[in-house]
Amino acid sequence: MVTSSFLHCYIMVFPNTLLFFVVSIEIYKHNKEERIARTWGTIARGLPYVDEAITNAGDWLIGGDLEVIEPIKYNDGLDQYRLSPAQLREEFARRNADAVFAFQLRNPVHNGHALLMTDTRRRLLEMGYKNPVLLLHPLGGFTKADDVPLSWRMKQHEKVLEEGVLNPESTVVAIFPSPMHYAGPTEVQWHAKARINAGANFYIVGRDPAGMSHPIEKRDLYDADHGKKVLSMAPGLERLNILPFKVAAYDTKQKKMDFFDPSRKDDFLFISGTKMRTLAKNRQSPPDGFMCPGGWKVLVEYYDSLALSEGSSKLREPVAA
Amino acid sequence: MVTSSFLHCYIMVFPNTLLFFVVSIEIYKHNKEERIARTWGTIARGLPYVDEAITNAGDWLIGGDLEVIEPIKYNDGLDQYRLSPAQLREEFARRNADAVFAFQLRNPVHNGHALLMTDTRRRLLEMGYKNPVLLLHPLGGFTKADDVPLSWRMKQHEKVLEEGVLNPESTVVAIFPSPMHYAGPTEVQWHAKARINAGANFYIVGRDPAGMSHPIEKRDLYDADHGKKVLSMAPGLERLNILPFKVAAYDTKQKKMDFFDPSRKDDFLFISGTKMRTLAKNRQSPPDGFMCPGGWKVLVEYYDSLALSEGSSKLREPVAA
Repeated sequence: MVTSSFLHCYIMVFPNTLLFFVVSIEIYKHNKEERIARTWGTIARGLPYVDEAITNAGDWLIGGDLEVIEPIKYNDGLDQYRLSPAQLREEFARRNADAVFAFQLRNPVHNGHALLMTDTRRRLLEMGYKNPVLLLHPLGGFTKADDVPLSWRMKQHEKVLEEGVLNPESTVVAIFPSPMHYAGPTEVQWHAKARINAGANFYIVGRDPAGMSHPIEKRDLYDADHGKKVLSMAPGLERLNILPFKVAAYDTKQKKMDFFDPSRKDDFLFISGTKMRTLAKNRQSPPDGFMCPGGWKVLVEYYDSLALSEGSSKLREPVAA
Repeated sequence: MVTSSFLHCYIMVFPNTLLFFVVSIEIYKHNKEERIARTWGTIARGLPYVDEAITNAGDWLIGGDLEVIEPIKYNDGLDQYRLSPAQLREEFARRNADAVFAFQLRNPVHNGHALLMTDTRRRLLEMGYKNPVLLLHPLGGFTKADDVPLSWRMKQHEKVLEEGVLNPESTVVAIFPSPMHYAGPTEVQWHAKARINAGANFYIVGRDPAGMSHPIEKRDLYDADHGKKVLSMAPGLERLNILPFKVAAYDTKQKKMDFFDPSRKDDFLFISGTKMRTLAKNRQSPPDGFMCPGGWKVLVEYYDSLALSEGSSKLREPVAA
């Protein structure tokens, strides 16, 4: 991506504060078609991040080495969760973690997610680790309009820890300040690599990570197994242990979320994100054991607040792109 | 790309001969859109290899480990040039090469190409190597309809060695049995990696390797520097020394091909592939020193043979896809 123009230094100023320098600047052409095709494996219209940040961007890009002068503050009441990789490593050391396992999420935590996390801890203890610590690392940047906004998700995550679904002693909650690209196998490599940098050595990956439906065809955009597959092959990720998981679903017999058992498949109920949102919007309750009551209440409050503001002008929460 | 179907063993039979087994077979979905987008960085219609081998292919692909029983013969009079990587390594050892530099090409060799190769040898000798050997490795599979067919290119290459433009003592000519994808920075990694396997430790790369014009927009499909750039960064290519080159052009003052000198740019003539083909088709001569006379004669004969067969049915040469 090198081109002709090199400047020595460029200064980025957030409102009223000098935050970082960019040195050894490169300016290069923004070949949008190539960028989109190589990142998403399609150039169909309707990719959320492309619509948000690429289509209307300029034809030139600027890059270089950053020299950060002071951490960026959002002043949105959530800055205490925005820990740098170095701060996260310090926190894991302070807790004497001998294994760190990371969970990437952009949705409210239901008991299926919690099952993956507690079962991972169980497996790590079985492997001989004495103090495996979970990095619960919700994504803090851009998400699609129908995803639950960060501030509400953080409230929901707080409830999940308060109500003991996850153990606060062995869980670090921090915001991963990245936009969501919904770029499947490409993006999952970034998700994993960034967590290595933050000190994780185990990474939980489920079915179709960072995947979505094809924007214009009736199918998933990515093969559900490709995310896992690229993580096991990608250069630079050799140090990370990938923990693939079976799908969790609601077991109507046991009245709890459990790993799907194909031998009694009629006992299981798959509750999609869409289904969950519809229930919360309509102030209905999900089946017992799907999510902790306090967490569910947060979701209902969020949709209530949306309904209230429907009449007035709808402001989207500001997020880092 | 793993999916549900695994068979144990599959047998490939070329006309009348058992050539290889495929073991540990995987059958997987052929997501053409994703394959094309990720390989070419566009899905615009008109990509030559896509039209040739992907668009009309089936919706499922088969893969696995090959166990080759005997080498594939084409019986086209060129099999003596089809050397396996192991055979090439043996040949370099036989010649006591202490450095092997590879040149990928799919076009007739003009004196600009020859200059790159002889100048590389000079640089390697200067670096202290005693016997650098050139692997002249023309591509033997599918090429676009307007490229010169393999059999004619091989005749042309023979002339280039016969007439001493390249030194037969320090040159190994072999066919690289790959189809041309015209996939720029993606393909150049394959071109380089395959030559490492064949024993090369230096690779000559010019401007916009494996590049072409965008099929529907008036611009080059790739940034001309990206091929070189990815070669310097790609995992698995650390062992290869990349030799980037300045552009060669026809120096009208010296009446020979030479490295372009921007300080006297009006003295230089760029003779494109299209221009070269038009001259040969019209039985015109290129400027003195552009190509050795015997090599040029082969090109004129090829276009004569084309003109002769224009009236009759036009048969394309069979090639490996």
